[in-house]
Amino acid sequence: MPRVSVRPQILDSALEQFHTRGFHNCSVEDITKAAGVPKGSFYNHFPSKDALVVEVLRQYASRSVWRTASDADIPPLLRLRRRFEAMRDTFVGREYTRGCLFANMGSELADLNQDVRAEVAASLAYRSTAATEMLREAQQAGDLAPSHDVSILGPFLVNAWEGVVTRAKVSKSSESLDGSFALFDQILAS
Amino acid sequence: MPRVSVRPQILDSALEQFHTRGFHNCSVEDITKAAGVPKGSFYNHFPSKDALVVEVLRQYASRSVWRTASDADIPPLLRLRRRFEAMRDTFVGREYTRGCLFANMGSELADLNQDVRAEVAASLAYRSTAATEMLREAQQAGDLAPSHDVSILGPFLVNAWEGVVTRAKVSKSSESLDGSFALFDQILAS
Repeated sequence: MPRVSVRPQILDSALEQFHTRGFHNCSVEDITKAAGVPKGSFYNHFPSKDALVVEVLRQYASRSVWRTASDADIPPLLRLRRRFEAMRDTFVGREYTRGCLFANMGSELADLNQDVRAEVAASLAYRSTAATEMLREAQQAGDLAPSHDVSILGPFLVNAWEGVVTRAKVSKSSESLDGSFALFDQILAS
Repeated sequence: MPRVSVRPQILDSALEQFHTRGFHNCSVEDITKAAGVPKGSFYNHFPSKDALVVEVLRQYASRSVWRTASDADIPPLLRLRRRFEAMRDTFVGREYTRGCLFANMGSELADLNQDVRAEVAASLAYRSTAATEMLREAQQAGDLAPSHDVSILGPFLVNAWEGVVTRAKVSKSSESLDGSFALFDQILAS
């Protein structure tokens, strides 16, 4: 039987721990224990917890709807709306807990871990570029007024979302989510 | 000489520690050491670090421009813009570090500390109500189109800001802040 690497289990366990408890609130031992692997195996795969969280953020990004959606056949404004709907549905399905790992790790670690800072910045830039391209496509199709500066609006929608989720996470209510979709529709219809 | 309470020093030190390092990344000893007071004095004033952070959030709220501004004589839309400008200026003056304590503690602690969750929710609700009232005043003065649902727009601007700041904190750039003011002006001019 080939030896199975415990690396994926550690990554999944770390995502769960960081997302539910935060970075500094859990230890390498908490992560390996929850993964059901020996603590010693951790350092065979990751040089440090600081390095691990960067890998966790990369995996989180790669599994996000922004990377996995097969939605190129959907009209661009609806496609963009569905990306946000998918994030909302995941979050609401977890009863307004956890929130976005990018916002969580960005808030907690941006000033402390340069690699985390850069990784979160890159992931939010990726989403911003994707949103901007969908808005531009909508303008070219005549579905969005040419007066919108899509290079400002795309990143703003992505950034605003992070705050909207944070608000819902503290209020444990869908109000901020509902309001953001109402504004989203109003802005994009104008 | 009357005995001077060290409570204010502990509160100021805790704000500094929580804002620069996060909640779980600093200990009661870090806080009392930075305050220059004996560790033992802490528990004369606060039952726990969990109770302390709630007091820190209350003090942070009470010192915010949303509570301290003497701006009732400024037209409502400009008044609202200046509240956001004041938050931006503080944040940019710190070279895009720290960010908003509400977002930071909300992200890190909303699922772990019910009192923190409620305190952050109440502070963001306070700002949302203030923003909504300024927008309503602007509508009544004929400075804002009556088509805007101010009860959705006010909270959205407050919530979006938290995400915009988080983005600037990870990108260490004014781009998201500049974009949000451009959108702010565009939405409020429409």
